[in-house]
Amino acid sequence: MDDAITLKSENFRNEARTGVIDCDVHNAVPSIQALFPYLEDRWRDYVVEHGIKSLEPNYYPRGTPLSARPGSELPNGHPPGSNLDVLRQQALDPWNVQYAILNCLYGVQMIHNEDWAAAMARAVNDWQNAEWLEKEPRLRASIVVASQNPEQAAEEIHRLGEHPGFVQVLLMVHSEMPYGKKHYWPIYEAAQQYGLPIGIHAGGVTGYPTMPVGWPSYYLEDYVSQSQAFQSQIVSLVSEGVFKKFPQLRVVLIESGFTWLPSLMWRFDKNWKGLRREVPWVNRLPSEIIKEHIRLTIQPLDESPKPEHLLETIEQIRSEDMLLFSTDYPHWHFDKNEEALPAKLPPRLEKKILSENARSVYRF
Amino acid sequence: MDDAITLKSENFRNEARTGVIDCDVHNAVPSIQALFPYLEDRWRDYVVEHGIKSLEPNYYPRGTPLSARPGSELPNGHPPGSNLDVLRQQALDPWNVQYAILNCLYGVQMIHNEDWAAAMARAVNDWQNAEWLEKEPRLRASIVVASQNPEQAAEEIHRLGEHPGFVQVLLMVHSEMPYGKKHYWPIYEAAQQYGLPIGIHAGGVTGYPTMPVGWPSYYLEDYVSQSQAFQSQIVSLVSEGVFKKFPQLRVVLIESGFTWLPSLMWRFDKNWKGLRREVPWVNRLPSEIIKEHIRLTIQPLDESPKPEHLLETIEQIRSEDMLLFSTDYPHWHFDKNEEALPAKLPPRLEKKILSENARSVYRF
Repeated sequence: MDDAITLKSENFRNEARTGVIDCDVHNAVPSIQALFPYLEDRWRDYVVEHGIKSLEPNYYPRGTPLSARPGSELPNGHPPGSNLDVLRQQALDPWNVQYAILNCLYGVQMIHNEDWAAAMARAVNDWQNAEWLEKEPRLRASIVVASQNPEQAAEEIHRLGEHPGFVQVLLMVHSEMPYGKKHYWPIYEAAQQYGLPIGIHAGGVTGYPTMPVGWPSYYLEDYVSQSQAFQSQIVSLVSEGVFKKFPQLRVVLIESGFTWLPSLMWRFDKNWKGLRREVPWVNRLPSEIIKEHIRLTIQPLDESPKPEHLLETIEQIRSEDMLLFSTDYPHWHFDKNEEALPAKLPPRLEKKILSENARSVYRF
Repeated sequence: MDDAITLKSENFRNEARTGVIDCDVHNAVPSIQALFPYLEDRWRDYVVEHGIKSLEPNYYPRGTPLSARPGSELPNGHPPGSNLDVLRQQALDPWNVQYAILNCLYGVQMIHNEDWAAAMARAVNDWQNAEWLEKEPRLRASIVVASQNPEQAAEEIHRLGEHPGFVQVLLMVHSEMPYGKKHYWPIYEAAQQYGLPIGIHAGGVTGYPTMPVGWPSYYLEDYVSQSQAFQSQIVSLVSEGVFKKFPQLRVVLIESGFTWLPSLMWRFDKNWKGLRREVPWVNRLPSEIIKEHIRLTIQPLDESPKPEHLLETIEQIRSEDMLLFSTDYPHWHFDKNEEALPAKLPPRLEKKILSENARSVYRF
């Protein structure tokens, strides 16, 4: 095992923890040909005839040392996260995880042809099942859907909803419209039916700027601003009454950061008090709805250089149930193992974050 | 004086404080005709011939009881904030302010004709000078500019830059592109030349959605999300190197909230460490640049129901210099006098917020 991924602290030895659930591990499609066995002839021909090389997104450009953790690159040129053995060694074993949830970010949401997008989503899910879930009992996966057409996305959820390996429906935070809108409700209806939370992950593509004030110039701006897109999605989901309509639905924000949450809850509660007549279905404090229905993964962790600030922030959330452990393997944000978990958490809270909170959200 | 604006607490009696500076008071143009004496013939004719009734923005719709504090409505149908005597009684006297800064939100930034927009900005400024600054020595004003054309905006700053009544240049947070872009640099160059900070206020209009994930349905969503637009502007200003190019420039965020600031600084610092090669001119921690160049007004205050959370948040900012007192008179957000200032501030910090911090940013 590479030095960079050797576990340094006594606290992080395998035997130190049990029942850990890693809620964000990324498996990558090694090449578009890997999906061919799972694609209908029509779409396989389409991909070949159009010379489509890959739908692997550019969030973590290959060849950029920053884009993946040291040692996760593969010698055959396949993207980090595309080899099960390496993923076992680097992501599953070090934390002694009981379950890890695969969030495959293959770019089906960037396809404008809805039927092709739906076919690619089906292929990715069948590939995930055959190549990952059936081979490694510690793995679970999110259902990849093409949210361009929520009815078709719901069909995919119905197709896989009873499969025990799939535990979540995956959306990307940059959407074509805010996720609270009724346009997306067929997805939520299907997810609720099978007890699947909606996972919303950083990334995505739309025609809208990634900042509410226009297009930024730098990836730095784009990445820092992702947390604002998550804030908008929470505001939309609550304001539109999604959780009134689907009272069992949970939404897990993945790679969102979470230290912005207390401030958002305060602001949202305050303005709801003045404007609640506009949204009469929101009949209790937005922060209460958020605490019941929203969960957030902890990596990457946007924390103060002073550890006590992080503990204060976690306390300000006023809920021990909301945070879920994640490593974001193999992306660069997870640069050191010991940083994946905040230092000095109270033991009870650490246990909830590492294991219990995920257990109450996901069906294992 | 109306009951609703009677000061209730001992702490808020006139004599309790001295040297208070209110950094956000809104004067309103009573009717478009009030600007006619300050408009060139060409544009006066244009307004009349096109039947333009008003450019008063719709942020606080007239007739909506929520949109203004009780008692600030005027019997003649003019908008709240358009009468100097009422403003004296309701905003200047209760806090015994030494100076109040007028931020006139008249909608010159929504005009697509750049020349007309610049003419309206000039008229608003001359009207502010004649009708407010010359009549009340406690008042100062922000220079209204039409940022559609930054060169013309800079000309307006040069026209008024040495006038002692104007202490700031006013922009709206929803811009046509992020404010860090070089497109806007002529404004900053002129502002720095006269020692004027740039005030960025909630509101504005562009073709972009007010959320980075698309158009929301409700004003509640729109208003809660304004704070995300402010976050984006900070990220843009720092990333594009505005403060490297204009090292004396200060930016004051107005009606932005501020409890989101610690989290943004943590996230920005962390990602800058990984991505700084993209923006080599950002050669120190973004949080250090923010602390030096950004200031924020305190109203409306997005605070926790637990007062200690607010104090923790203020401490997490790790600067006593950044917050500026404001009432946001006459808008609804300022619903109770005693809420304009956080409870239980340490006396030294309270003094800095009420007076000293503004004194070090604005030239009085």
